[in-house]
Amino acid sequence: MKSIDVNSDLGEGFGPYRIAPDAELMPLITSANIACGAHAGDPLIMDETVSLAQDNQVRVGAHVGFPDRQNFGRRMMKMTLKELELMTIAQLGTLGALADHRGAKLTHANFHGALGNLSFEDVDVATVLIRAMKAYDPKLKFIGLADTEASRVAEEEGVEVVYSFLADRGYCAPGRLAPRGTEGALLHEPEDIRVRVAETLSSGKLKLTTGQSIPIKIDSILVHSDTPNALRLADAIRQGIADASLGIAPYGL
Amino acid sequence: MKSIDVNSDLGEGFGPYRIAPDAELMPLITSANIACGAHAGDPLIMDETVSLAQDNQVRVGAHVGFPDRQNFGRRMMKMTLKELELMTIAQLGTLGALADHRGAKLTHANFHGALGNLSFEDVDVATVLIRAMKAYDPKLKFIGLADTEASRVAEEEGVEVVYSFLADRGYCAPGRLAPRGTEGALLHEPEDIRVRVAETLSSGKLKLTTGQSIPIKIDSILVHSDTPNALRLADAIRQGIADASLGIAPYGL
Amino acid sequence: MKSIDVNSDLGEGFGPYRIAPDAELMPLITSANIACGAHAGDPLIMDETVSLAQDNQVRVGAHVGFPDRQNFGRRMMKMTLKELELMTIAQLGTLGALADHRGAKLTHANFHGALGNLSFEDVDVATVLIRAMKAYDPKLKFIGLADTEASRVAEEEGVEVVYSFLADRGYCAPGRLAPRGTEGALLHEPEDIRVRVAETLSSGKLKLTTGQSIPIKIDSILVHSDTPNALRLADAIRQGIADASLGIAPYGL
Amino acid sequence: MKSIDVNSDLGEGFGPYRIAPDAELMPLITSANIACGAHAGDPLIMDETVSLAQDNQVRVGAHVGFPDRQNFGRRMMKMTLKELELMTIAQLGTLGALADHRGAKLTHANFHGALGNLSFEDVDVATVLIRAMKAYDPKLKFIGLADTEASRVAEEEGVEVVYSFLADRGYCAPGRLAPRGTEGALLHEPEDIRVRVAETLSSGKLKLTTGQSIPIKIDSILVHSDTPNALRLADAIRQGIADASLGIAPYGL
Repeated sequence: MKSIDVNSDLGEGFGPYRIAPDAELMPLITSANIACGAHAGDPLIMDETVSLAQDNQVRVGAHVGFPDRQNFGRRMMKMTLKELELMTIAQLGTLGALADHRGAKLTHANFHGALGNLSFEDVDVATVLIRAMKAYDPKLKFIGLADTEASRVAEEEGVEVVYSFLADRGYCAPGRLAPRGTEGALLHEPEDIRVRVAETLSSGKLKLTTGQSIPIKIDSILVHSDTPNALRLADAIRQGIADASLGIAPYGL
Repeated sequence: MKSIDVNSDLGEGFGPYRIAPDAELMPLITSANIACGAHAGDPLIMDETVSLAQDNQVRVGAHVGFPDRQNFGRRMMKMTLKELELMTIAQLGTLGALADHRGAKLTHANFHGALGNLSFEDVDVATVLIRAMKAYDPKLKFIGLADTEASRVAEEEGVEVVYSFLADRGYCAPGRLAPRGTEGALLHEPEDIRVRVAETLSSGKLKLTTGQSIPIKIDSILVHSDTPNALRLADAIRQGIADASLGIAPYGL
Repeated sequence: MKSIDVNSDLGEGFGPYRIAPDAELMPLITSANIACGAHAGDPLIMDETVSLAQDNQVRVGAHVGFPDRQNFGRRMMKMTLKELELMTIAQLGTLGALADHRGAKLTHANFHGALGNLSFEDVDVATVLIRAMKAYDPKLKFIGLADTEASRVAEEEGVEVVYSFLADRGYCAPGRLAPRGTEGALLHEPEDIRVRVAETLSSGKLKLTTGQSIPIKIDSILVHSDTPNALRLADAIRQGIADASLGIAPYGL
Repeated sequence: MKSIDVNSDLGEGFGPYRIAPDAELMPLITSANIACGAHAGDPLIMDETVSLAQDNQVRVGAHVGFPDRQNFGRRMMKMTLKELELMTIAQLGTLGALADHRGAKLTHANFHGALGNLSFEDVDVATVLIRAMKAYDPKLKFIGLADTEASRVAEEEGVEVVYSFLADRGYCAPGRLAPRGTEGALLHEPEDIRVRVAETLSSGKLKLTTGQSIPIKIDSILVHSDTPNALRLADAIRQGIADASLGIAPYGL
């Protein structure tokens, strides 16, 4: 039986602050994208999140973002390609060392917020980010979205892509996320999400907001962690996977 | 011929700011203690400093400090032992990854400012810091001062200590730095420093501010980088080493 | 009928993060101690909190803390008296300008976390902080605790003290907060807190953890905002005030 | 005799770091644009810079910038108009309170780096920034450049504009700064700058990089503080003003 990975962005707190119910989400997912102390996270939280991941046999990955805590990496910052390269290495190194220290291993990375969005569209940025990942550790996988520059560059660079599906987001042609604010851009009902996951996995086809369907490769499904119903969303996604008669397991198994 | 290492704290800038004439000091030293982005440094500066070190065959080490840029890590911050441990791992990981990315290798570490001072006196802090270094990489050497808890713990833990002599600082019994502000605590004249280096290395004995002399082990001499006459200080130290008929070479050679 | 003020620490979020249910607490209190962007808070949150206070006729005050977001101002930082003075002026100025911009007015201040604790014991620190408040605006009131250096200095300096009672904390002789971790240091049950408020206000006497009672002056009662049951705590305190046949109104009315 | 103001960006250090020789520049200028703790500056440095200004009868102004120390406010950050408004109020309030504390008075403001550039072109940003200044204190003057949205909005809003001339920068049609990197965009030689100041002030006409001349209104001339020869630049500008038979005095005198 083929299996599907379930990934989520965790460790997004800072000092006394927390965003998501990490301890409750961790048993429901199979790979964690952990903030590296730039847009969110600090050494204590990184360590705690890695530890939670270990306890739940969840894969540990780095969620690299702009160094802008006040806007949580969601605000575009104009950085040079050199800065982006070195920032990525620094963030991977920070989380990687904390993971090693726990006896865990960093096995994937991806990009958060405004940096992630930039990597979807800007081939130069995508290239510098993917190459930095590869330079840090050529075995790191990239959890990416289909039809983005970042995933295309990763394929070209020989970085294995784990294709992630955002089950609570609408997609428009040719296969991109529908912009927030447009009709159908966000699915809220867990039941709708469960059905969508089941149908998309069963058929291998993704229904766009236009009604049209396109083929889609799905290795993993993202659980948005910072929504009030993250746990119900995770349950709906897991149920949808089961409905498609697929298993749930970390990528690479 | 025995040789002596010359170490200095470099990479202490941040964004547009610089502290020391790093590019001019680098050819005069053999090991660099590089700030890791907490009390000072950022990815661009860490990368630039590692690159300068490589160009000059200078050993690359991590200078771990309190995360307090505004006070440059010079202000005591009360952190738990767990925070100190994880902060050390995080800083080593950050600089280590940037060094690897350049094809360089982190081969030593030490502790900056208020954290360093704390590690001289507090055996619990010293233990957690040295063990964090060892956990990160057991081959890392520790550039430390004689007669401090940090060096004692390092010896006990089997972490090799490179004993550093602060040639422009007075020492008081039983072999500690004389507190700033006390008589003889600071030597300012390069010529005095040259003579002191030569005499101390030749005799193997350190003259204390009391006039008394004690045996001292010296593997390396520190060039304070953030003084207006850092370059002249480096020259004086190098000349003093030559006057003692010793060579200058990175530790471990 | 004499009335009692109810104060709480609000606006303690940062960027995407929030600590307390500010919008729900605001109608239950009469004066707000608002973080000024150092240990917590940012311009958007300060503005939003001032606006909530205005909507609920709540007095606006500055909660001045150490500039250490990662530890939320709870970690002792060694700063010079000059730094403490200027940091206080800067924080008052920041919140004061945002309050003015909203048509509100800063009418009190107090000190948060490790800085607050320091001001209880250290007369030099207390003096510098209270004088900075007075220099910024001599009409600012100080919400302080009885039997602390900060309140004593305020009285001496002619800064009006609004004496605050921590209804969910035990007190030991001669009238100080019992250290956390000691027997009776924390009251958890809203019902116990209600009874304590009623009895203490009715009798004018505070029962210490030793069983002994001492006279106490109470102008305001603090609702700890960062506890899971902050709203129930606020209700209990308000009920306790009513039980003592007193009204609830902002200080100075 | 008409007189010309000489302005410069000062107080741009942070913690142990300094950018410009503030103490030496201050006697050569008549108005200081002081960093407010966001892109640069901290309470100690703001206080020290205000004090230096007082000692030299120099006008105190706020230099408002993006909250991005690592890039010194030179990197575009996408902020909402609301954030820009509140950030401006917060920065004015911080410096204003520190100035008041010293017995000085904030009498102007302007915008730094990437924020300044944005205000030249984006009328919505310019409007929000100028209105924030006016809301903070309607008597604040704006030190601005001719032919920019910021100055146009200031005029419309009734905020007095002190027109600043960048004597070491080329201008292109219709009267804007020539982009860096283009021919004639930067003048390096103090002698050239002196001549340019004298000619432009005497004739009231600015020679563009195209050779064409346009009328220009000059109330103040900027001394770039962060160039290696800032002091010589200041001297050249002062000499140029004298050559045009004009005096040097703070704006508004």
